[in-house]
Amino acid sequence: MISIVLIGTGNVARHLLDTFRLYQEIRVVQVLGRNEKNLAYFREFSKTSSDFEKLLPADLYIIAVSDDAIPSVSQLIRNKNGIVVHTSGSVSLDVLSKYDHRGVFYPLQTFSKERKIDFKNVPICLESNQREDMELLKTLAHHISEQVYEISFQQRRSLHLAAVFVNNFTNHLYQIGNRICEENKVSFDILEPLILETAHKIKDLSPHDAQTGPAKRGDKRTIKQHMEVLGNSGYRKIYELLSQSIEREYSEWIENPYLPDRGIEKK
Amino acid sequence: MISIVLIGTGNVARHLLDTFRLYQEIRVVQVLGRNEKNLAYFREFSKTSSDFEKLLPADLYIIAVSDDAIPSVSQLIRNKNGIVVHTSGSVSLDVLSKYDHRGVFYPLQTFSKERKIDFKNVPICLESNQREDMELLKTLAHHISEQVYEISFQQRRSLHLAAVFVNNFTNHLYQIGNRICEENKVSFDILEPLILETAHKIKDLSPHDAQTGPAKRGDKRTIKQHMEVLGNSGYRKIYELLSQSIEREYSEWIENPYLPDRGIEKK
Repeated sequence: MISIVLIGTGNVARHLLDTFRLYQEIRVVQVLGRNEKNLAYFREFSKTSSDFEKLLPADLYIIAVSDDAIPSVSQLIRNKNGIVVHTSGSVSLDVLSKYDHRGVFYPLQTFSKERKIDFKNVPICLESNQREDMELLKTLAHHISEQVYEISFQQRRSLHLAAVFVNNFTNHLYQIGNRICEENKVSFDILEPLILETAHKIKDLSPHDAQTGPAKRGDKRTIKQHMEVLGNSGYRKIYELLSQSIEREYSEWIENPYLPDRGIEKK
Repeated sequence: MISIVLIGTGNVARHLLDTFRLYQEIRVVQVLGRNEKNLAYFREFSKTSSDFEKLLPADLYIIAVSDDAIPSVSQLIRNKNGIVVHTSGSVSLDVLSKYDHRGVFYPLQTFSKERKIDFKNVPICLESNQREDMELLKTLAHHISEQVYEISFQQRRSLHLAAVFVNNFTNHLYQIGNRICEENKVSFDILEPLILETAHKIKDLSPHDAQTGPAKRGDKRTIKQHMEVLGNSGYRKIYELLSQSIEREYSEWIENPYLPDRGIEKK
């Protein structure tokens, strides 16, 4: 059995608890958080505390707090033998350097309170500097997920950056689509099948091959019409920049699309 | 039975034929296209021709060609009594004004040759200026889809614009994510569950409520780190602009997020 103390009460901590408690082999012995109100949810399934002096012994301390809070929170884990890990995609393992046993347990997914997540499909990205610690992290990860990866900080950081594009920014594009629908009194629901197909398409086609639309076709008339509709809004700038970037992707003169060379020309 | 002549041999024409031929009540009597090579696919299921003089009589002529080609192609349908429709999201019905019986049959989906599409879930947006023509279009649309909408040109055009954001631009973000993965030798497949969850999330949450990530949280440290990694690439400009737009969406001082007011400040 693996005993765990969860530190933090946000979305990641909540989803981890909801998953861990499904497995007999995993026991969340305590949840620690400074926010008493947020602790309420966890009290049903585990001991809780807001006092780091009362930290219980465990095999693993999982720090699931915002990136900025990791350094200070990690200072508060004292006189304990378990492995200390954080769950961030963009923070180095070094931030935990005061612990001999340290690691990273990064679940690559978007977590909202209102959506249940099946962890079986959540990639877990692991890092540790000691072989035996990595073994314990792997054992834990394989219990809850079918996708477990041992990756370097550089790789994790770049996955996190890519995730910002495919998740955060994509969701913002949905938001813009939603607003355009609202303005014109059509239901955003009409776009749902398109949104789902766009996502599922990448299972069969590379994004490069899946691209469609006016910018890909070089259809200047439609692009001009769309820009006029968007007027001087911030959305117009987004439309223009992304259309230019797509045109550039499919213009033949790009021999080497290597990232740092892909400057977009000013108009 | 509804008899149809399909004009055009691209992805939309192909997917329409693949769907129509599933229904006994629908008969594609002819496919017309100037590209003999592209016609080959259609020959198995229908008569084909590249000569507009040989156009057969039908209840419905569906022009499924690129937006720019609609005006010229539509001139070639002569001495026929059927309804003439186009399939475009951004072209007015007026382009077909020489026909008494005209309409729009716009399937709102992204079509690639390599992906089968179940039309049951494809919203069909209809327009016509005559009640009886609309009835025939509705009958046809209801045969193949469970989502049939009668909408105005302005609504159709705004749906098309919104579709560019949620499909074309989203797919481009996937492409950027893919490149970042390639650069750092991690598999793009690791992002697949995140991409799918991002899309499926909007079934339960509005995009506004579903937003997560550094820009939403105002996590300047992570944003700065990401911008450094992106260097002077075009992707950096996209990152910056979309992050600003998200920050603006969640900054409290925006009382009225009405589209035309949403200018993004220059730095």
